[in-house]
Amino acid sequence: MTLIDDLIEALGTETVLTGNAIGERYRSDASTTGKSLPLAVLRPSNTEQVSLALAICDRHRQPVVPQGGLTGLAGGANARGGDIALSLERMSGVEEIDTAAGTMTVLAGTPLEVAQMIAETAGFLLPIDLGARGSCQIGGNLSTNAGGIRVIRHGVTRDNVLGLEAVLADGTVLSSLNRMTKNNTGYDLRQLFIGAEGTLGIITRAVLRLRPLPASRLTALCALESYGHVVSLLKSAQRTLSGLSAFEAMWESYVRFNAEALKLTFFDKTYPFTIIIEQDVDGSDEDRDRFEAFLAKAFEDGLVTDALIAQSEKEARAFWSVREGHLMDQLMPGLINLDISLPVGQLDAFAGDCQAALLARFPAAHVSFFGHVGDSNLHVGVWVENASAHDLHEVDTIAYDLVRKYKGSISAEHGIGTLKRDFLDHSRSQAEIGVMRRIKAALDPNGIMNPGKVIPPAV
Amino acid sequence: MTLIDDLIEALGTETVLTGNAIGERYRSDASTTGKSLPLAVLRPSNTEQVSLALAICDRHRQPVVPQGGLTGLAGGANARGGDIALSLERMSGVEEIDTAAGTMTVLAGTPLEVAQMIAETAGFLLPIDLGARGSCQIGGNLSTNAGGIRVIRHGVTRDNVLGLEAVLADGTVLSSLNRMTKNNTGYDLRQLFIGAEGTLGIITRAVLRLRPLPASRLTALCALESYGHVVSLLKSAQRTLSGLSAFEAMWESYVRFNAEALKLTFFDKTYPFTIIIEQDVDGSDEDRDRFEAFLAKAFEDGLVTDALIAQSEKEARAFWSVREGHLMDQLMPGLINLDISLPVGQLDAFAGDCQAALLARFPAAHVSFFGHVGDSNLHVGVWVENASAHDLHEVDTIAYDLVRKYKGSISAEHGIGTLKRDFLDHSRSQAEIGVMRRIKAALDPNGIMNPGKVIPPAV
Ligand SMILES: Cc1cc2nc3c(=O)[nH]c(=O)nc-3n(C[C@H](O)[C@H](O)[C@H](O)COP(=O)(O)OP(=O)(O)OC[C@H]3O[C@@H](n4cnc5c(N)ncnc54)[C@H](O)[C@@H]3O)c2cc1C
Ligand SMILES: Cc1cc2nc3c(=O)[nH]c(=O)nc-3n(C[C@H](O)[C@H](O)[C@H](O)COP(=O)(O)OP(=O)(O)OC[C@H]3O[C@@H](n4cnc5c(N)ncnc54)[C@H](O)[C@@H]3O)c2cc1C
Repeated sequence: MTLIDDLIEALGTETVLTGNAIGERYRSDASTTGKSLPLAVLRPSNTEQVSLALAICDRHRQPVVPQGGLTGLAGGANARGGDIALSLERMSGVEEIDTAAGTMTVLAGTPLEVAQMIAETAGFLLPIDLGARGSCQIGGNLSTNAGGIRVIRHGVTRDNVLGLEAVLADGTVLSSLNRMTKNNTGYDLRQLFIGAEGTLGIITRAVLRLRPLPASRLTALCALESYGHVVSLLKSAQRTLSGLSAFEAMWESYVRFNAEALKLTFFDKTYPFTIIIEQDVDGSDEDRDRFEAFLAKAFEDGLVTDALIAQSEKEARAFWSVREGHLMDQLMPGLINLDISLPVGQLDAFAGDCQAALLARFPAAHVSFFGHVGDSNLHVGVWVENASAHDLHEVDTIAYDLVRKYKGSISAEHGIGTLKRDFLDHSRSQAEIGVMRRIKAALDPNGIMNPGKVIPPAV
Repeated sequence: MTLIDDLIEALGTETVLTGNAIGERYRSDASTTGKSLPLAVLRPSNTEQVSLALAICDRHRQPVVPQGGLTGLAGGANARGGDIALSLERMSGVEEIDTAAGTMTVLAGTPLEVAQMIAETAGFLLPIDLGARGSCQIGGNLSTNAGGIRVIRHGVTRDNVLGLEAVLADGTVLSSLNRMTKNNTGYDLRQLFIGAEGTLGIITRAVLRLRPLPASRLTALCALESYGHVVSLLKSAQRTLSGLSAFEAMWESYVRFNAEALKLTFFDKTYPFTIIIEQDVDGSDEDRDRFEAFLAKAFEDGLVTDALIAQSEKEARAFWSVREGHLMDQLMPGLINLDISLPVGQLDAFAGDCQAALLARFPAAHVSFFGHVGDSNLHVGVWVENASAHDLHEVDTIAYDLVRKYKGSISAEHGIGTLKRDFLDHSRSQAEIGVMRRIKAALDPNGIMNPGKVIPPAV
């Protein structure tokens, strides 16, 4: 029997899409770099079907690409010609909320926003949060160790996963559905799958940690004169504001571009740095007084030159709209958004060097910087008019060479996938990459799990 | 040349102790179950020496046992006859503190307390903390993923490690000294070594996350009538007290025994549950008012029957002295302290079942319970007069069989070592143990790293 016959016999025709039944959406993740439709799309509805599917593919040495919500930005979920995609889209649902422990057991194909809403209904915050929440899936969030906008308070995805279930290449179901904060019983296998981008197995379930739902949130926009002030303000906020939930920095050119595009003016001029600070609070007047006192003190200490506290939800959204910069994508089609990290003290020095190096090569380029500074994460917006593929590659090379020089990370939150694979050695040593290969071979000896992603081929 | 000759030639006689030069202290960790002195004790003073030592041992197929501060409670650092010990005691020191980022780079042999004090001098809290702080080492803390008393606020050791350097069995130096909060560049190798109890390689350096130093701390002792109230109070504290840094529960018999031994009386009687709550605060009157208001509300809501706020450091220490129960060890020599975890809602049901099962077998036994309830962690004190080795094994078996029934963990924080190795399958599936073996074989193909620990031999 052929592979497809085997799969149909084991899983049924409804679960195995082939030929015209394969929709366009299975071609690419949000990086829009996917070129091929998969040979087939498997849509299992439970862990047993995932196990059957992988065991059959392993026997046939058939490469399998896990697909979650396809919002990834690294090309990790794209099939190469001849690859089979395994989509988690039919494995959706929250199975349990333990309200005493504050944990949630959820199927991997559950859209993040659905899980967030169910948590909220039960009185909890699911702390994983990112712009793609409507489409991305819990399994994709775990597989990319997603970051997002509340990391400074609640950590990255890894920090919010207590346990998971995964299926290995040979069909073995590995159930590590731990629900406890403390569990030191041998190797912490869940950590292997988090951030592995589907190269070690398929995540089918997870136990997530929930947090108390904040009663409300205070938001301030601050104008600062220097990066030294940014770092001092961050340290002071971390010391003083116990529910600090965002600390976002925008460099001057980023604010100028976006505020102009949005026709928004907040201060008398554009300052070298504009910061958004948010704090989760219990909603009392006292909390507001404290937040104001914190800003007043920062002003007295000369850290902050001007500051606004949002008086309404609407005003807070206006602050964030500058930060989100949605108009940039429209006004600068093909805009590159680099996602790197460095120790916080070095972000501005890097930004200066990076801007100089990019402008030396592309004098008319737009280069601007913003970042989750509290998480050591810098985003670099780069736009080169009519850029060729070669130009784009040169931008990457210039930026990542500098990241290597600074001993930083070429991917803070988006992962490696295919797009950064050949730069992996800019952030990881050959010894590390060698150990990754050993682990890959130990768990997936026939190399069927998402081959060609993350780890560059051995030379 | 013999192995020892090879080692001496490469490392020098000062680094290689043999024969009478091997002190008694290298025989056992704090479990006092170590029987043999090691064949030799290697005391490298840098990573290169660790690498040389392991490469030579690997070539000779010589088992190596890493030794940190030897405060472990699972027998993990004990040599079997013929094993060589590699002690990190000469690799001590803090190499760097990045005050902007709040990170510390430290050698693995640094005693925890030394690292804590250096952090404090620089204005930071190193959040890893446990009773053995004077002797245990950072490398041992990472290798056991130590828990301790501030987990509810700052997480376990794993949550406070940004990067590490480790040496593999074949001498490969694996440098993953990441310093950023966000770094998604391939597999997170540091996670493998954290909690591996020296079976995958030797940790030589770590980058730790530092936190702001709390200005002061408020402590309350509360009397509660039921476990339902304990869980409600915990949830309320997690919602209301943003710097909640301890939530410790003591069951009635535990309090009665220890308060009597210490001749301390706090309330009119001993209640079913006594709780210690601590909150890190900025030292203002406002903070104290809030803490009092929280307790007043808990009293009004009927969660708490009586409560005391410590009026001095001395009073806070008195509360803790009951919890620490140091006199128990003296009054009940051979006392067993089980260290398990379960979802918080189930701890009391487990305690009831466990007490009944132990008393059915040993009617005169002392059985008492206390725990880091906020971390799902329960400690069970069990004392059987004149217990034989067989009795002790029976206590373990009764308790761990129940843990298995409750799908809990047989080791919340102390690890597996040798003492819990043959119970590992009570908390982990055969599939999980199989994957642990695959990973072990991938990183240590000749099986020289701490053999016989953690993973039971395949049958
Ligand atoms: C508008 C927008 C905003 C974004 N904001 C952020 C942000 O703030 N922070 C951030 O980190 N990312 C962000 N992203 C990127 C993306 O949303 C995340 O990487 C997300 O976690 C991907 O989830 P997904 O379900 O869409 O995964 P996919 O794109 O489908 O897959 C991602 C990778 O995981 C693998 N995978 C998916 N599901 C599984 C599974 N069940 N088992 C094993 N492997 C699997 C795939 O093979 C692929 O390698 C953003 C993307 C967009 C479009
Ligand atoms: C009074 C007291 C209180 C305690 N309280 C707590 C507590 O609250 N929470 C808690 O979790 N534990 C506690 N413990 C247990 C113990 O202190 C911890 O497990 C500690 O982390 C062990 O550190 P160590 O340096 O002494 O390690 P060791 O005992 O020397 O070794 C422990 C294990 O790690 C391995 N190892 C050590 N160093 C390295 C290295 N550099 N590389 C690779 N492997 C290595 C050893 O081979 C062994 O398997 C307590 C112990 C005592 C005696």
